[in-house]
Amino acid sequence: MNWWLEACQIPNEEARLQAEARQLQLTKPTGSLSELERTAVTLASLQNSAKPNVNSPWITIFAGDHGVMEENISAYPQAVTRQMLQNFTSGGACISVIAKEYNAALQVIDCGSVGEPYEYVGVERHCIISGTANFAKQVAMTEEQCRQAMQLGLLSAEKALENGASIYIAGEMGIGNTCSASAVACFLLNEPAEQLTGVGTGIRAEQLAHKKNVIDQALALHKNYVGTDTFKALCAVGGLEIAAMTGAYIRCAQIGLPIVVDGFISTVSALVAVHLNPAVRDWMLFGHQSAEYGHRRLLNELSAAPLLKLNLRLGEGSGAGAALGIIKLACSLHNNMATFAEAAVIGDKI
Amino acid sequence: MNWWLEACQIPNEEARLQAEARQLQLTKPTGSLSELERTAVTLASLQNSAKPNVNSPWITIFAGDHGVMEENISAYPQAVTRQMLQNFTSGGACISVIAKEYNAALQVIDCGSVGEPYEYVGVERHCIISGTANFAKQVAMTEEQCRQAMQLGLLSAEKALENGASIYIAGEMGIGNTCSASAVACFLLNEPAEQLTGVGTGIRAEQLAHKKNVIDQALALHKNYVGTDTFKALCAVGGLEIAAMTGAYIRCAQIGLPIVVDGFISTVSALVAVHLNPAVRDWMLFGHQSAEYGHRRLLNELSAAPLLKLNLRLGEGSGAGAALGIIKLACSLHNNMATFAEAAVIGDKI
Repeated sequence: MNWWLEACQIPNEEARLQAEARQLQLTKPTGSLSELERTAVTLASLQNSAKPNVNSPWITIFAGDHGVMEENISAYPQAVTRQMLQNFTSGGACISVIAKEYNAALQVIDCGSVGEPYEYVGVERHCIISGTANFAKQVAMTEEQCRQAMQLGLLSAEKALENGASIYIAGEMGIGNTCSASAVACFLLNEPAEQLTGVGTGIRAEQLAHKKNVIDQALALHKNYVGTDTFKALCAVGGLEIAAMTGAYIRCAQIGLPIVVDGFISTVSALVAVHLNPAVRDWMLFGHQSAEYGHRRLLNELSAAPLLKLNLRLGEGSGAGAALGIIKLACSLHNNMATFAEAAVIGDKI
Repeated sequence: MNWWLEACQIPNEEARLQAEARQLQLTKPTGSLSELERTAVTLASLQNSAKPNVNSPWITIFAGDHGVMEENISAYPQAVTRQMLQNFTSGGACISVIAKEYNAALQVIDCGSVGEPYEYVGVERHCIISGTANFAKQVAMTEEQCRQAMQLGLLSAEKALENGASIYIAGEMGIGNTCSASAVACFLLNEPAEQLTGVGTGIRAEQLAHKKNVIDQALALHKNYVGTDTFKALCAVGGLEIAAMTGAYIRCAQIGLPIVVDGFISTVSALVAVHLNPAVRDWMLFGHQSAEYGHRRLLNELSAAPLLKLNLRLGEGSGAGAALGIIKLACSLHNNMATFAEAAVIGDKI
């Protein structure tokens, strides 16, 4: 049996009920903190704790390059993937600043960028392959390569837990990866590119039409190989970092580590994870609804209502990272507000 | 001339342009941080600083009671207003936890709650009147009382600036005050209660219908007195804390202190402030779109797009307070992300 089919942990129902009961006693109109209440209650059940917390968030950025870049589907050159790896670890990238802001551990894993071997301080180089193959012409990854990428995610989740992480974020870096993510989503939801493809980092209308054509043709090319097999869809048109995030999400659920899902690409990984192992869904909070076209559809498929909607479209786990502040606040309110009894405030309605 | 008609400060256009130029150089796809970019750029212009910050947020809670409570329009008893004053200063209320989370100064001003004189540590008792009059029967405040309430807001804004505040939040506490706020909004926007009245802290459908009737009758009762005079609308159906917040917002704009507007009631005060002195609008950021019916309409009137939408309906400045974390993050990203040149990342699109 593939490891990703193994059972997930079960959120603690008693902790959930206790947290709900506490929320009813806090000095505020019933239900008036809405999403903040729900977040704290969910996290209480996932952390099996009366005092949920995000004291030790963990963020892993998975990077990978995409052979489909040959088809001219992105606004930025492929070299940026590798350049950003150094920016992550040297503190200048968006997610680096976010990690510092919320005291998060930041792990950077190169699953397969294009270029010569290198040594960057702080970057874990596991180049399974020097970029995926061009899925417009052949499968992006062999099944073995895809397994290896998923395994990187598994190891990351386990490392996070070993290091005392209280919540896990997977982010991604890979020029061209909205194209791969859209293609995977099309296979999973049985939709044409039109429904699930956006401008990514900012291509123009003409290039967007071309990107959709590339995807539609790839869907036709790989249709027989993929059939209705989620794993094969990931191999055929996915990316190394997309597979790694899928593996990370599944392992988080198996070891009981709450997840905050990021934007479009991460949500595709989340959807793959849930298709492979539905109980993974229980371990997911959703940080941010991206500006990328198709994200809302993906969120609906996962019955997800993200905490933030700031029109970010940056990747790197930045939307989930931004949500850490809100999740942290939800926990602080849950843990530190006074009850009606403590504050001698009338809690009953008239 | 009334003080609130005096000129507002003018946001610094040069600082805005410099901040916009910096955003274009940060290592991310152009515009990809969207609302976070806009927030940082706006704050740069308001603080006239290349490095906008929320290091010293200031929150003032204005409390007041409402004579219209005689008409049975709220879910909670009036005694809760005063009980919550102690909860604010003893650290158990939602806004107390938020203030601590974001290192904000928290000022608590009783503009006029119902009950005997008292001494609560940390509460500034300025009881202009022991609750407003019942606006279903007479004007809620005399013009002199309303001026006094606005003056409390003025003094609060000035105190915040004197204490080095970098951003100002006004919150409110007053059982029954969504009823007053809706009535004021109806006068300003020339709408019936139906368009701008919600369930507040959680009344049932029958009581909501009654609340709307009370408002519609009051609109008819005070129509001749009010005419199209914004200040008189505030006197006729407003509240002491609503008037105080109006005064605070206007003074903030006059002394150059950026504002984060909170939910429904605060937004009504913001609307009054902008009707009295339109340039006040330039100094407002908007924190949160509340669950209260009518808030979206008010936000549209102010061309406002709040940072958060968490379905909160608590008051106390909690929505604006929750947004402090996002504003803080926007500043951190603006100030601390690397530029393309610093990180040696290709910034030009293909």
